[in-house]
Amino acid sequence: MRATLMYGAGDVRVEDVPDPVLHEPTDAIVRVVRTCICGSDLHPYHDMPASAHGTRMGHEFLGVVEELGPSVAGLEKGDLVVASFAYQDNTCQFCREGVQTSCRHGGFFSEAQAEMVRVPQAAGTLVRLPVGADSALLPSLLTLADVYGTGYHAATRANVNPRTTVTVIGDGAVGLLAVLSAKQLGAERIILMGRHKARTDLGVEFGATDVVAERGEEGVAAVRELTSGDGTHAVLEAVGYKQAYQQALGVVRPGGVISRVGVPQYDEAPIGFGSLFGPNLTLIGGPAPVRAYIEQLLPDVLDGKVEPGKVFDRTISLDEVPDGYRAMDRREAIKILVQP
Amino acid sequence: MRATLMYGAGDVRVEDVPDPVLHEPTDAIVRVVRTCICGSDLHPYHDMPASAHGTRMGHEFLGVVEELGPSVAGLEKGDLVVASFAYQDNTCQFCREGVQTSCRHGGFFSEAQAEMVRVPQAAGTLVRLPVGADSALLPSLLTLADVYGTGYHAATRANVNPRTTVTVIGDGAVGLLAVLSAKQLGAERIILMGRHKARTDLGVEFGATDVVAERGEEGVAAVRELTSGDGTHAVLEAVGYKQAYQQALGVVRPGGVISRVGVPQYDEAPIGFGSLFGPNLTLIGGPAPVRAYIEQLLPDVLDGKVEPGKVFDRTISLDEVPDGYRAMDRREAIKILVQP
Repeated sequence: MRATLMYGAGDVRVEDVPDPVLHEPTDAIVRVVRTCICGSDLHPYHDMPASAHGTRMGHEFLGVVEELGPSVAGLEKGDLVVASFAYQDNTCQFCREGVQTSCRHGGFFSEAQAEMVRVPQAAGTLVRLPVGADSALLPSLLTLADVYGTGYHAATRANVNPRTTVTVIGDGAVGLLAVLSAKQLGAERIILMGRHKARTDLGVEFGATDVVAERGEEGVAAVRELTSGDGTHAVLEAVGYKQAYQQALGVVRPGGVISRVGVPQYDEAPIGFGSLFGPNLTLIGGPAPVRAYIEQLLPDVLDGKVEPGKVFDRTISLDEVPDGYRAMDRREAIKILVQP
Repeated sequence: MRATLMYGAGDVRVEDVPDPVLHEPTDAIVRVVRTCICGSDLHPYHDMPASAHGTRMGHEFLGVVEELGPSVAGLEKGDLVVASFAYQDNTCQFCREGVQTSCRHGGFFSEAQAEMVRVPQAAGTLVRLPVGADSALLPSLLTLADVYGTGYHAATRANVNPRTTVTVIGDGAVGLLAVLSAKQLGAERIILMGRHKARTDLGVEFGATDVVAERGEEGVAAVRELTSGDGTHAVLEAVGYKQAYQQALGVVRPGGVISRVGVPQYDEAPIGFGSLFGPNLTLIGGPAPVRAYIEQLLPDVLDGKVEPGKVFDRTISLDEVPDGYRAMDRREAIKILVQP
């Protein structure tokens, strides 16, 4: 089959690789109907050391079940399914406590930009979709694999509700879907910090009430001005750079919450009296246990009440994936859908 | 009147100073009946630069109202009252949201180891106590000014409940009262990390089910062993040194909470993928808005259901305060009560 490999920063290739096979009785093989390129794929695209051995890429997909291991209950060949970007048994204690990303038998997908994927812990990972493989809802349904659930994780972990004011940092797909999620949870004031008009326009469509294009100190000042000097109760940080964390500290209100879902590209950062401790701030977040949210978010997608799939503004074939990385890196596209 | 001043590290003196007077119509003057020395007073005792001008010390007190400004409602001269270690109007938006330590008209006491104290925002700060100035409950009631409310803040902000396992780091008064608070909130498993047997014995009396005397990696390994390798849902960090934060990261369970009430003696610390982010940990805490908790904690103290005052294991006069600092610094006493 054809699959995407990265050989180093900026070097993405689509090549022939062996078809996946069942390894464990809990595995399934899924033929990919839609996959996509993630903002987080751009991190290795910027800094992966060159290597003679390519690294398989991709963690978001929906597709049709081709094969099932003998222990996989609840699924049938031919089912259209979506997978969470992390696989999990969804039965261990950590899963039951809502941290499926820490499942005792879990891990992360990394081979989904391909024609087929081996799915470990298939019973706990794949969710059947009640639509056909030609449904117009596929883009929105694919966001349940990662970006929608991740934006929702940011908002729900920050306890966004009708009484909270919200700042979202980042106008990538996750930031935009954090806006959508905050709106779903009832927030009436949602300030989106982002510099790309096409993206922030979609953010406004998703529910942002204000857009702040400035960054750093100017951006902080602009949010403060919009909030009588106080900042917002919740800050949803969907970028991952240390500057974004600093910005979050600048716009959060005393007693408020910084909820991070952008994968941190830093280790140490200020959490002392002058930053996090003094104003009793909460720092929360992590890789989203999106499996926990799929059933909850699915009905509004199926009803068309929300259209998270609007974050996809370009569709390409698998062989065009190297161009897709380039386009996302140049911000020519928000998020790129791949139809193998 | 007599008052405590610190002239530099290790240099505490009790001297004559002018009596306090009303500055604002919202002020009161309180004659101190009991004050005490706090673990956090030891930080300047270790590192305050020497100066010709002493710095007034102390932030915990209960006493009798001597004078009231014209705008102070709800109090009368002669009332026995306890003050939160931070003063606040208790009416502004931040106070109503439960972060009284960020009150728009608030601040921190720093002159309470004295015979009298000026109390700003007296109506929002002083809570009347329904006992006489000779009550045997005074030590326990005084803990409402800081250490009990601070231990409670750690536990309640970590959402401790009957289903959570808890580690408390630190066997000072705040750590011990974090144990007491976790027990009150229903925790059935409370591991206390502390090295001083007299203190950890009191911790066991307060509700600790296990004591771990080891620190650093050995301490982490011991807690892991007690918890099937997983760590505990909540970690209440009542020390403030970076090693204690590192220890908290080591013993917290995926999806768990690190709740800090030890004043951080560091600025930057690890919060990246390998520490806080990957396992979806929450970092919470800050200076406790103890005013928010006084009414809630008072009944069990008055009923004798809890005896937080047991953290006081020595009583001295005001003139003996310099000896009190020395004794607490040498760990000869857990916490020292001062009777001016």
